[in-house]
Amino acid sequence: MRGGTVFFKPATQTTIGEIVALTGSVPRADAPLDRVITGVAPLERATSSDLAFISQAKYAKLLKSSRAGACLATEALEHLVPGQITVLRALDPFYAFVLVARQLFPDALRPMSVFETTGTAASAVVHPTALIAAGVTIDPGAVIGPRARIDTGTIIGANAVIGPDVEIGRNCSIGPGVTIVCSLIGDEVIVHAGCRLGQDGFRFHSSPRGHLKVPQLGRVIIEDNVEIGAGTTIDRGGSADTIIGRGSKLDNLVQIGHHVSVGRNCVIVAQCGLAGSVVLGDHVVLGGQVGVADHLEIGGGATVAAKSGVTSNIPPGGKWFGYPARQAREYFRSLAALRRLAKATKPD
Amino acid sequence: MRGGTVFFKPATQTTIGEIVALTGSVPRADAPLDRVITGVAPLERATSSDLAFISQAKYAKLLKSSRAGACLATEALEHLVPGQITVLRALDPFYAFVLVARQLFPDALRPMSVFETTGTAASAVVHPTALIAAGVTIDPGAVIGPRARIDTGTIIGANAVIGPDVEIGRNCSIGPGVTIVCSLIGDEVIVHAGCRLGQDGFRFHSSPRGHLKVPQLGRVIIEDNVEIGAGTTIDRGGSADTIIGRGSKLDNLVQIGHHVSVGRNCVIVAQCGLAGSVVLGDHVVLGGQVGVADHLEIGGGATVAAKSGVTSNIPPGGKWFGYPARQAREYFRSLAALRRLAKATKPD
Amino acid sequence: MRGGTVFFKPATQTTIGEIVALTGSVPRADAPLDRVITGVAPLERATSSDLAFISQAKYAKLLKSSRAGACLATEALEHLVPGQITVLRALDPFYAFVLVARQLFPDALRPMSVFETTGTAASAVVHPTALIAAGVTIDPGAVIGPRARIDTGTIIGANAVIGPDVEIGRNCSIGPGVTIVCSLIGDEVIVHAGCRLGQDGFRFHSSPRGHLKVPQLGRVIIEDNVEIGAGTTIDRGGSADTIIGRGSKLDNLVQIGHHVSVGRNCVIVAQCGLAGSVVLGDHVVLGGQVGVADHLEIGGGATVAAKSGVTSNIPPGGKWFGYPARQAREYFRSLAALRRLAKATKPD
Repeated sequence: MRGGTVFFKPATQTTIGEIVALTGSVPRADAPLDRVITGVAPLERATSSDLAFISQAKYAKLLKSSRAGACLATEALEHLVPGQITVLRALDPFYAFVLVARQLFPDALRPMSVFETTGTAASAVVHPTALIAAGVTIDPGAVIGPRARIDTGTIIGANAVIGPDVEIGRNCSIGPGVTIVCSLIGDEVIVHAGCRLGQDGFRFHSSPRGHLKVPQLGRVIIEDNVEIGAGTTIDRGGSADTIIGRGSKLDNLVQIGHHVSVGRNCVIVAQCGLAGSVVLGDHVVLGGQVGVADHLEIGGGATVAAKSGVTSNIPPGGKWFGYPARQAREYFRSLAALRRLAKATKPD
Repeated sequence: MRGGTVFFKPATQTTIGEIVALTGSVPRADAPLDRVITGVAPLERATSSDLAFISQAKYAKLLKSSRAGACLATEALEHLVPGQITVLRALDPFYAFVLVARQLFPDALRPMSVFETTGTAASAVVHPTALIAAGVTIDPGAVIGPRARIDTGTIIGANAVIGPDVEIGRNCSIGPGVTIVCSLIGDEVIVHAGCRLGQDGFRFHSSPRGHLKVPQLGRVIIEDNVEIGAGTTIDRGGSADTIIGRGSKLDNLVQIGHHVSVGRNCVIVAQCGLAGSVVLGDHVVLGGQVGVADHLEIGGGATVAAKSGVTSNIPPGGKWFGYPARQAREYFRSLAALRRLAKATKPD
Repeated sequence: MRGGTVFFKPATQTTIGEIVALTGSVPRADAPLDRVITGVAPLERATSSDLAFISQAKYAKLLKSSRAGACLATEALEHLVPGQITVLRALDPFYAFVLVARQLFPDALRPMSVFETTGTAASAVVHPTALIAAGVTIDPGAVIGPRARIDTGTIIGANAVIGPDVEIGRNCSIGPGVTIVCSLIGDEVIVHAGCRLGQDGFRFHSSPRGHLKVPQLGRVIIEDNVEIGAGTTIDRGGSADTIIGRGSKLDNLVQIGHHVSVGRNCVIVAQCGLAGSVVLGDHVVLGGQVGVADHLEIGGGATVAAKSGVTSNIPPGGKWFGYPARQAREYFRSLAALRRLAKATKPD
């Protein structure tokens, strides 16, 4: 293997002075404002053309040996940065660092054409009634069905499949191998490789004779600025819609059942499963592998720890643990009680 | 977004009289039998051309404000339906409702061609030795290998891949992006987008030097009327077959190991994992995210609650909870005991 | 269905004498060394042309009725094999059995071309700057991006997508529908159908205003002889790489977060989730549905039981259970303590 292969080269270069202007950070009086910065990296990996950052004292030990060209730091940590590194004071060094990274590496912000082209690839199959705006990229092997509408700036990945009447907004990235049917997608949405959106939910009339499929007539609505991780599945609603609210981020291999409503700016970590008709408020955070039973509501701002199982409604704002999910205080008391009891018990 | 986009239009329309005939429900003497019904919806969303249903008293409060044209109801609830809604008495209102929904919206019953075509798309790649019956639809980009047999009425989705010698019966829907190798599929089977069927199981000869792959020579057998959710993976058996019994329904992102045998009419909810050689009887229900260890048997009719971990055989018919999975009585006693103990304990 | 369909026919046939030579097993003096063996099977399914094996006394009851032509057995069990079965003594009968199976059924050792062809299929889309070695097979509908390098003996499955600059070594099998970007893949690697490698990790700058995506500039490195199960997702690192060490085996639907480092010869069973920056030593075994929280280290040789949740570092070599994961002794004491307590408690 060519160990030196680099997949992302900076789209541009910047200077200390431009970083100051972009981030509102504060240089020292003697800072070399015309020094060129071409990359971003953590302290321990940065070279003299890289920008790094420090916002927690526990990483201060990395400063001494760092070869970073510049480092964003909080006021409290600024004095620890060695003299050969240009220090830039910032209220939120990580935020400033991310702003610079996004400017230098725009190609890493969303899945790009794997063919590095624009327009519609010769081998893509686009139905004549589909409405493809100017400035759309359709990669090889993608299939776009009748009356689908795809707006400007959007990339449809190789071998992705877009069904009839689906609408996709501006500046979206639909990854390779994605399937989207019965869905309306907003602007600036990222759907990573292999996601499945809009297939019908898991709903049957069950009797001793078997399970009769109930037609699912709803849709999937993905609002603006949502990101959906690789391999995630989102079923369409039965009569009402399944909705992922603006700005929410879903990780890989998440399962969203029919008629789920996810609020705005939620974070759903990998392998979570939300059963049918679950409602999440805004800014809910679900750790990895969490399960939520059907028809439950989780209030805005609540956090559920990884691997928890939610079996009843959760009010806004607290932190929940375990299965069945309980508040932190009760959960940790249970753990402690059990640990003490176990110490006093011999195994069967 | 065009909020008004509708993905499913009724294939036909019906009347109160025809609904009575189809479902065996009982209208009142003055029912307008020629009233036209074009849709189905829950009470709170139904319009005057929609059929709704009520089978539980707790939803009775929705009746007053409902604008449904007609409503199926149990004998016990029939009298609560307001006069402007045509009421139809039914033993099982939900079942009758599903029958009508299926008649009005046949396109929602299984994944259809995303190109809305029939026959073999020009960009599909079908091996000359494959046997494709009349009445099969093969969507753009699908790949069908040597000697595969696909029977009439079946749809192969866009960019799906069907391997050598695979057989698929009548009236199946294979979703977009599905991969099927080393498998025999019955009739009326639905395989949703992105499923992976027939790859070899996870079996090695392990030693301190590493893990030597054991050839897996068995098959995947999917019996009639099975449904498999999006992104689900089913490995083929090592020497015997992996079998999914007639009428069983698997949800999204389920993992079925090699040589598993699932009985008839089982329900396996999303993200369950069944390790190698597990045997499920008929009518077993596994809630979401359940795990079952290898070589275990779960008796017919048993139900395992979501997120449980099954570590020993389960007899037929009971309800099981937790990890390790226990019967309801023991599980809830454990929870209660721990809760009381925790109340009496301070955290560490 | 044609119940008799066989997907794997032996590529060759062998004899008792050749098996003795290949495996170092020891025949009895009167063994028919020229007897032809064409298959492998477990004792209960073997026919007279099949090789079987026995290495555990608990399966001895299968010997009497077995119709196997030959059977590998440990010294302790050898005398139990009936006279009509040719017995071959081996130190590790299963290992010897696997060696023979691998010789007879090489096609079952990795995903093969579903079109049974070699070279580049007419419908594959290969960028003119991609470097495709002689002896590479590219199945129909596959898409290979600019400057990708694919070495000899490798198969790229139907409708797979390989991104720009990706490198894939010798004798790899990339399954149908796989997506690989920003990755370097060694030799003899198997990537099963529908895997997603190299998409960016789940990393944001979060504030009350929302979640700002952090560019992920690292790579995925897959070392030699790794196997990755169907539907598994592996995110690329943020600045450093995500690494899967030589000889490690991942099952289906596993999630590997950004900057994870998996050691050599690890085994990760289906539906495990490893959060960002987790480090596994060599020979770590994770049972199914295990979750590991971010930045944790699991020492070499440690085993974590299925469904466990790892919330703190684990030293090398032990066996861990539950959530939070504890050592066997403590875990089973807890279970026993709780069981006794529950017996003495009435449910709420």
